[in-house]
Amino acid sequence: MKFQATIQIMLKESVNDPQGNAVLSGLKALGFENIENVRVGKFVSVQLQATDRSSADAEVNAMCEKLLANTVIESFTYTLEDVTT
Amino acid sequence: MKFQATIQIMLKESVNDPQGNAVLSGLKALGFENIENVRVGKFVSVQLQATDRSSADAEVNAMCEKLLANTVIESFTYTLEDVTT
Repeated sequence: MKFQATIQIMLKESVNDPQGNAVLSGLKALGFENIENVRVGKFVSVQLQATDRSSADAEVNAMCEKLLANTVIESFTYTLEDVTT
Repeated sequence: MKFQATIQIMLKESVNDPQGNAVLSGLKALGFENIENVRVGKFVSVQLQATDRSSADAEVNAMCEKLLANTVIESFTYTLEDVTT
């Protein structure tokens, strides 16, 4: 089976996000006044072959833990979509 | 009304993604063999006040066009969630 994994990685709530603050300032300077809580993160899209959903799930989780996210300061979420043709 | 916008910005399919290729190589080097098509993008989370969903939608679209995405090489998608308390 072929899965499309969509992974969102962002700084934990307790970690300061200077990039998000810069985007917030930039948007306000452009006239977007009614905004708050801007956070910037990474977004990774991966296609993988796996025998079933649970093994795909375990594999994506391992990818995030080992390489994609720095779990000390970042949290991640992902969705898995079956794209077997 | 208060909305939570979740914006995904990624390079267009036709644009080379060296960061995605680097992540693909890194994951393969770690033993994840059954993967392909890795693309890396940005992910921006914004909370905004708006009178209704359509004005929130227009505002988020304008933010992406004006600041967040470089629409020459990047495409964006977003979801809007009503988080009025």
